[in-house]
Amino acid sequence: MGYEFAIWFLIGAALVFFMQCGFAMVETGFTRAKSAGNIIMKNLMDFCIGTVVFIFLGFGLMLSEDYVMGIIGVPNLDILTNFSEFAKSGATSNFVFNLVFCATAATIVSGAMAERTKFSAYCIYSAVISAVVYPIEAGWVWNSNGWLAQMGFVDFAGSAAIHSVGGVTALIGATIVGPRIGKFTKDKDGKTVAHAIHGHSLTLGALGVFILWFGWYGFNGAACTTIEQLSSVFVTTTIAPAIATVTCMIYTWIKDGKPDVSMCMNASLAGLVAITAGCSNVDAFGSIIIGIVSGILVDFGVGFLDNILHIDDPVGAVAVHLFNGVWGTLAVGLFDVNTGLFYGGGVRQLGVQALGIACILVWTAILMTVVFQIIKHTMGLRVSKEEEIIGLDISEHGLASAYADFVPSIPNYIEEENYAVDVDGIKPAGISVGTEAIGKYTNISIICNEERFPVLKDTLAAIGVTGMTVSKVMGCGVEKGKSGIYRGVKTSMNLLPKVRVDIVVSTVDPGLVVAAARKALYTGNVGDGKIFVTNIDDVMRVRTGATGMVALNDEK
Amino acid sequence: MGYEFAIWFLIGAALVFFMQCGFAMVETGFTRAKSAGNIIMKNLMDFCIGTVVFIFLGFGLMLSEDYVMGIIGVPNLDILTNFSEFAKSGATSNFVFNLVFCATAATIVSGAMAERTKFSAYCIYSAVISAVVYPIEAGWVWNSNGWLAQMGFVDFAGSAAIHSVGGVTALIGATIVGPRIGKFTKDKDGKTVAHAIHGHSLTLGALGVFILWFGWYGFNGAACTTIEQLSSVFVTTTIAPAIATVTCMIYTWIKDGKPDVSMCMNASLAGLVAITAGCSNVDAFGSIIIGIVSGILVDFGVGFLDNILHIDDPVGAVAVHLFNGVWGTLAVGLFDVNTGLFYGGGVRQLGVQALGIACILVWTAILMTVVFQIIKHTMGLRVSKEEEIIGLDISEHGLASAYADFVPSIPNYIEEENYAVDVDGIKPAGISVGTEAIGKYTNISIICNEERFPVLKDTLAAIGVTGMTVSKVMGCGVEKGKSGIYRGVKTSMNLLPKVRVDIVVSTVDPGLVVAAARKALYTGNVGDGKIFVTNIDDVMRVRTGATGMVALNDEK
Amino acid sequence: MGYEFAIWFLIGAALVFFMQCGFAMVETGFTRAKSAGNIIMKNLMDFCIGTVVFIFLGFGLMLSEDYVMGIIGVPNLDILTNFSEFAKSGATSNFVFNLVFCATAATIVSGAMAERTKFSAYCIYSAVISAVVYPIEAGWVWNSNGWLAQMGFVDFAGSAAIHSVGGVTALIGATIVGPRIGKFTKDKDGKTVAHAIHGHSLTLGALGVFILWFGWYGFNGAACTTIEQLSSVFVTTTIAPAIATVTCMIYTWIKDGKPDVSMCMNASLAGLVAITAGCSNVDAFGSIIIGIVSGILVDFGVGFLDNILHIDDPVGAVAVHLFNGVWGTLAVGLFDVNTGLFYGGGVRQLGVQALGIACILVWTAILMTVVFQIIKHTMGLRVSKEEEIIGLDISEHGLASAYADFVPSIPNYIEEENYAVDVDGIKPAGISVGTEAIGKYTNISIICNEERFPVLKDTLAAIGVTGMTVSKVMGCGVEKGKSGIYRGVKTSMNLLPKVRVDIVVSTVDPGLVVAAARKALYTGNVGDGKIFVTNIDDVMRVRTGATGMVALNDEK
Repeated sequence: MGYEFAIWFLIGAALVFFMQCGFAMVETGFTRAKSAGNIIMKNLMDFCIGTVVFIFLGFGLMLSEDYVMGIIGVPNLDILTNFSEFAKSGATSNFVFNLVFCATAATIVSGAMAERTKFSAYCIYSAVISAVVYPIEAGWVWNSNGWLAQMGFVDFAGSAAIHSVGGVTALIGATIVGPRIGKFTKDKDGKTVAHAIHGHSLTLGALGVFILWFGWYGFNGAACTTIEQLSSVFVTTTIAPAIATVTCMIYTWIKDGKPDVSMCMNASLAGLVAITAGCSNVDAFGSIIIGIVSGILVDFGVGFLDNILHIDDPVGAVAVHLFNGVWGTLAVGLFDVNTGLFYGGGVRQLGVQALGIACILVWTAILMTVVFQIIKHTMGLRVSKEEEIIGLDISEHGLASAYADFVPSIPNYIEEENYAVDVDGIKPAGISVGTEAIGKYTNISIICNEERFPVLKDTLAAIGVTGMTVSKVMGCGVEKGKSGIYRGVKTSMNLLPKVRVDIVVSTVDPGLVVAAARKALYTGNVGDGKIFVTNIDDVMRVRTGATGMVALNDEK
Repeated sequence: MGYEFAIWFLIGAALVFFMQCGFAMVETGFTRAKSAGNIIMKNLMDFCIGTVVFIFLGFGLMLSEDYVMGIIGVPNLDILTNFSEFAKSGATSNFVFNLVFCATAATIVSGAMAERTKFSAYCIYSAVISAVVYPIEAGWVWNSNGWLAQMGFVDFAGSAAIHSVGGVTALIGATIVGPRIGKFTKDKDGKTVAHAIHGHSLTLGALGVFILWFGWYGFNGAACTTIEQLSSVFVTTTIAPAIATVTCMIYTWIKDGKPDVSMCMNASLAGLVAITAGCSNVDAFGSIIIGIVSGILVDFGVGFLDNILHIDDPVGAVAVHLFNGVWGTLAVGLFDVNTGLFYGGGVRQLGVQALGIACILVWTAILMTVVFQIIKHTMGLRVSKEEEIIGLDISEHGLASAYADFVPSIPNYIEEENYAVDVDGIKPAGISVGTEAIGKYTNISIICNEERFPVLKDTLAAIGVTGMTVSKVMGCGVEKGKSGIYRGVKTSMNLLPKVRVDIVVSTVDPGLVVAAARKALYTGNVGDGKIFVTNIDDVMRVRTGATGMVALNDEK
Repeated sequence: MGYEFAIWFLIGAALVFFMQCGFAMVETGFTRAKSAGNIIMKNLMDFCIGTVVFIFLGFGLMLSEDYVMGIIGVPNLDILTNFSEFAKSGATSNFVFNLVFCATAATIVSGAMAERTKFSAYCIYSAVISAVVYPIEAGWVWNSNGWLAQMGFVDFAGSAAIHSVGGVTALIGATIVGPRIGKFTKDKDGKTVAHAIHGHSLTLGALGVFILWFGWYGFNGAACTTIEQLSSVFVTTTIAPAIATVTCMIYTWIKDGKPDVSMCMNASLAGLVAITAGCSNVDAFGSIIIGIVSGILVDFGVGFLDNILHIDDPVGAVAVHLFNGVWGTLAVGLFDVNTGLFYGGGVRQLGVQALGIACILVWTAILMTVVFQIIKHTMGLRVSKEEEIIGLDISEHGLASAYADFVPSIPNYIEEENYAVDVDGIKPAGISVGTEAIGKYTNISIICNEERFPVLKDTLAAIGVTGMTVSKVMGCGVEKGKSGIYRGVKTSMNLLPKVRVDIVVSTVDPGLVVAAARKALYTGNVGDGKIFVTNIDDVMRVRTGATGMVALNDEK
C-alpha cells in the first residue's frame, strides 16, 4: 500500500469527524428549539469527552498489541509517554480513525434521549460508551486478534460495532429515561396515544442528513486499500441509501397518503447504516435489496416504538441505527458475494453474523442497563418536569434561548400525562358581567401559561365556545423569570412567555367562560394568569355580513 | 496515472455529492418557510430517483461501450448482473462520478420551479432528466466516442452539459408552471410589475453557496490527471467566482445604491458555472474576464426574467446556470490558451463551442417542453391556488411546519393576480356604533386571513385610515384546520394563522371602516374573519402629548 | 514527495476554503438576526476581495522569488502574464494555498466588529489586510528566505502568522469602532456594566464550529510531507481542541454553576488556534497541556474584554484568535519535542517564539491602527445610531430581513448609553379617564418603538405597575418605513416593528400611567407611539379566583 491510501485513510477520518456535525444538525433539527443548545452541547461534548477517555483507556482496550484471549486489550499510555514510537508504528493514524468511529457510536444515543436527559448524566454515560463499551466490542470485530474477527465476522465499517451499539443504547436509554412530557397520553379507554412533537428545523435536519451521507463515503471507504475496493464501496454506499429513500417515499405515500419528508431523511440514514457492514462485500444488486428493506424497516421501526412499545425516540435513532444496524449485519450473511447465502455461500456466514450481532447487543445492553440504572438511582438521569417544560437550554445551561431574535411559537402538545377535559358542574364565576350580558357582546381576554393553553382550548370548546383568537405574548408580573448566563454575563428573563386568548361571547354567559377558563388554568402556582372582561359594542362576521349575536353563532 | 488520482477522482465525486446539500440549502434559503420541507424533499429525491434511473438506463445511454453513431449508448445491466467485471473495468468509479454529476443537472431545476410545482410531477420530470435528457447529451460531450467530443468541443466539467441543461430546463419549467401567486401583478395601466418575495433564510442560502463553492473544487478538479492541471483548475475555480462576486457587489452598489447580498451569492455561483467549461483550458487572466462578465450577467439575467420576460425564478437558477453556462461554454472559444480566439487560436473553437451549446440546448428544450406539457395535461404540473397559499409542506407532505417552534411572520405580498383597490360606493355598515361615534374614539379589531391582509391595508388607506396595529394571531372557529402527518403520527392544525388589525378612529365613521374592511376581506369562504367594535375612552399621541381626536389625526 | 502529498496539499486548501463557511456561520450565529445578511456578506466579500488583491499584490509580497533582505518580496504579475510558467513552477498550488490562509486572517476581524461597522469601511480594511499586512509578515514566517524562518521561528500552520494577526486586528478594530449600543451601560455609581446580547442562532454557530474543526485538519495538515507527520498532526489537532472544550465545560460549570454552551464552542476553536503553531512539533502530552490552558484562557479572555477592558467582541474573536494564537506560538517554545523548554531544549526556541510573535503583533497593530484611524476620519468606520438600531441588513444592503418569514422577537437590551429611570415629579396626564377611574379597571394599551420598550418597562415599574402583557406587533401610521431592494426589486417596509404593552390598573391613576409612559417613550421623532385607554368591566386572577381590584394587586 502506497502513501495514497494512508492519506486517504486520514481524509476519511476527517470526513467521519465531520459526521459529528451531521449528527448534531439532525438531532437538533428533529427536536425542539427550547433545548437546541443542550443537544448541540451534548453532541460537541461526546466527541471531546470521548477523546479524553479514548486516550487513557479506550484505545488500549480496543487495539493494544497486548490483546488477551481475543477479548480485551491491556491499555497502555504509549501515546502519552512514547509518542515518537507511537507515531512511527502508524498507531497515530489508527488512533484518530478509531476515535472518530468511537465518537459516532456515542453520539447516536443523545438524539433518542433528547430534551429530558440531564446533561451531567449524559457526560457520564457517554464517557462509559467511549471508554469501555465500544472499545471492547469493537476490538472483537476489528482487532485482528479479536474473537469475532478470527471467526470471520464481517462488519466492514460498523453496522454492528458502531450503529447497533449506539442504537441499542439509545433504545435502553430512551426506555429508562421515559418519554417526553406530552409525547404519549391515555385516551378515555386507557389506551396510550402517541402525539407528534415536531422538530424545530427540518432544514437543519436535512443539512445533517446530507452531511452524514457525505461523511459516510469516508466512514465506509476509509479502510479500503485498493482502488477497486474503494470504488465498489462508493457504489454500494450510494445505491443503498438512494434506494432506501425512494422506497420510503413510495411506502409512506401509499401508507399515509403523502410522502413523508422527515421519514425519508431517516430512510437515507437507514440505508447508509444497513450498507455499512457489507459495503465492501456486497454488489450493486445486494445494495438494492438492502436499501429496499431499510426504507421500509425504518418507517416500521419508528411506528413500532411510537405505537407498540410507546418509547419516545425523537430522532428515530433506534429505527435507523439499531434496526438497520442489525439488518445490515445479517444482510452480509445473505448478500456477501463470496459467502452469502443467496450467493451460494451457505449459511455459515449468516450464522457468524447472527452470533456476532447477538453477542455485541447483549454485551452492550447489559453494561448500559447497569450504567443507566446506577445513574438513575444516584445522580439522576432525568431533569425535573419544570426543567423539561421550560427547556433544557435555560435549565441546564442558563441559556435563555438558542434563537433569541425570534418569537417562539405556542406549543401545541399537552404537557400533562393524564389529561381529560371535565366541565361538569362548573358554575359561572361571580364577575360583574353576568347573565345580563347575554345578548350583548362581551370580550374575555385570558393571559395564561403556554403549557396550559391546550387544556384551556379543549375546556372552552367543551362549554360551547367555538371561536377564539390566540396570540403569543410576553408577561411580567408577580412571577419572577429565570436568570441565565450568556458568555459569562448574567441575563434575566423577566418577561415570560405567555398566551393571550380572546373570546367574544354573546349567547354564552361570560361568567361561565371565566369559570371554565379558571378551572383549566388553575395549578396553584404564581403565574397562573389573569382574565379580563370587557364590553364590546358590536361584531360583524365578514362572510355573511351579519352583525350582532348572529355573527357569533356558528351555522352548521 | 497512479492511484493517487484515482482516489482523488472518488474524493471529487464525494465533494460533488456534497453539492446536493449546497443546492438544497440555497434553494430552501431563497424560498419561503412554508414550503421548506418540500424543497428539501425535492433536492433529496432527485438524487435518489436519479440513482435508480441512472442504474437502469442513464449510465448505459451515456457511457456504454456499445455507443452508436456518436449519439447514444446501448444500455446494459452489467452493474447488476456482472458487478465484479464492472468493478474491475473501473466502471464503478465512473458510475459514481457521472451519477453525482447527473444529479447536479437535475437538482438545478427544483429551485426555479419552487413553491408551486406538484411533488409528483417533480419526481417524474426529474427522473426523465436523469434517465434520458442528461445521459444522452452528456455522452455527446464526455463519451470519448461522442460526436461533440470528436469535434473537439471543450466542456471540461459541464458548463454546457450540466449547468446549461439544468438552466434551460429551469427556464422552460418556470415558464410553463407560471409564476408564484403574488410575484407579478398588473398596475392600473396594465403593466406587469414584479414584486420581491423574500427568501426565508439568507444564512442557509449563504451556507449553500459556501458548500457549493467548496464542492466545486471536486466538480471541476476531479477529472484532472496531473498535478499541474489540478492546481491550475484550483486557481481558475477560485479566481472566476471571486472576481464575479466583487464585480456584482460593485455593479449592484452603483446600480441600486447598495451592495446586494443575495445577488452577490448568486454571482459566486455564476462565476463558478462560467469557469466550469474552461477551468482546465484558460489561464488566470481569462478567469478574471470570465468572472467579470459573470458578475454582471447574473444580475442582468435576474432582472431580465423579472422585468422583461416576467418569469418567476425564485432562486435565480436561469441567470446562474443557463446564462452563465452558455457564457462559460462560449468563453472557452475566446480564452482557451491554445485554441481561443483571443489567444490567437482563430474562430474554429468558438464555432465548435457555439454549435455544441446550441445542439445541447435544442435537445434539452424540445424534450423537456414535451415532458412538461404531457405532465401538465395529464397529472398536472402545478398545485392548486389553495395549496400554494397554505404552502407545499402541509399540502404536499402533511407537514404542518418545517419550523414548528417559531411564529411565522405575516406575508407582505398580495396573493391575487389582478388586484386594484376600489372603494367607490362603499356604504357604512349598519353596526350599532355609527356616525354618532364620530368625535368619540372607537377601536375596530379585525381578525382575518393572512393572504387578505395586504388588500385590507390598502383598502383602509383608501378610505382615510392612516394608522393601524397589526399582529400575528392564531384563530380557531368554524373553519377547520388542515390535518397533517409527522413521522407517521397524525397531527391537526386546528389553530389557523390569522392577522389581527386594530384601528382606532375618531373622525372616520366606524361603520365605513367596517364596510370597507368587509369588502376587502370577503371571499365567501368560511374563515373570512370577524370584526369587533369597541369604545375607547381616550387616546394620546406620545410625541405631541395631544389627547383625544387630535391625537388620531395626522399632521403633515 | 510523490503526487499524493501534492494532491493532499490542494485538498487541504479546499478544506481551508471551507473554513470561510465555518467563520461565516459562527459569526452570524453569535450575532443578531437584524444584521445577519451583512455579516454573511462581509465573510463572502473578504475572501473575494482578498483574492483580487492577493493576485495583484499580496502573493508577490509574500512569496516572490525576488525576496528583499528577508523582509519583503517584490511583486510581479507572472500569474497573469505568464501563467503557463507560473503553473509549471508549482506556484499555482502555492497561490491557492496561501490565498485561502490569507482569507482566514482577514475574516477573523469581521466577527469582532460585527453589527456596527460600515460595509464600505470593511471592504477597505479587509483589502489592506490581504494585500499588505498579512503577506508581509507571513513572508517572514513562511517564505524560506523570511527572517523569522531563518531564525528558526516555528509556526507550522499559523497561530502567529494568521490567528494572532486576525485577533490583534480584531482587538484594535473593536476598540476603535466602539461597543454596540446596549452592550455596556453605566450604573448609578458610574461603573460600567456589561450586558449579554444573545446571538441569534446557536445552532448555526455550532455548525460553524464543526465546519471549522473539520477544515482545520486541512489547515494544520495540508503542508505535511510525510504520512508520519500528517498522522501526528491529525492527533494533535484532535486532542488539543477536545481537551480545551472539556476544560472549558468543567471550568464554566464550576465558575458559573452551569456548563456554558457558546463558551465551549469558543473553547473548541481556542484549542484549535493554540495547537496550530506546534501541531507538527508537539506530542500528545503537549497537546493536552496546550488544550487545558486554551480552555481556560478563552473564558478568561472573553471576561477580560467584557469586564475589564469594556471592549465589545460579539463572537469572542480576540479571546480565541489573539490570546490563544499568542499562547500557541509561545507553547512551541515549551513543548516542541526537540527544542522546547520542557523537553530539555533550553530557552532559545521560546525566545525566538516570543520575538517572532512580538514583531508580528507590533507590525500588525501599528499598520492596522493607522488604517482604522484613516478610515474613521475620512469615510467613517461606524454606521449611525439609527442604522445600527434598525440593523445593518436594511441600512447597508437594503435587505428588509434575512429571515423574512419569521416574527422577530422584542429586543431586551436598552439601546441608550446613559440610562437611568427617573419618575420624580411626573404629573398625571389630562386624559378623560382620571382619578375617578381608581377603583374601576382601566386598560392602557401602549404602542411604541421596540428600542424604547425596556425604558418603558422600568419606568412603569418605578411608578408601581407590577403586571403587563407585551406583544410584538407591526404598526403603520404617519411614520414612513424604510425601502429596500431584494434581488433588484424595490421593497417597502411600510409596516414597522412595534411593541404593544397592555396594562390593567385599578389602584393606580391611569393618567399617571399615561404620563409616565409618555415620559419613557418621548424622543420627539415621528413614530414615538400612541396610548389608548379603555374601560374594563372586570378582572379575575386565576390562582386566587379573586375578582376586581384584589385581582390586580400583588400579594407579597
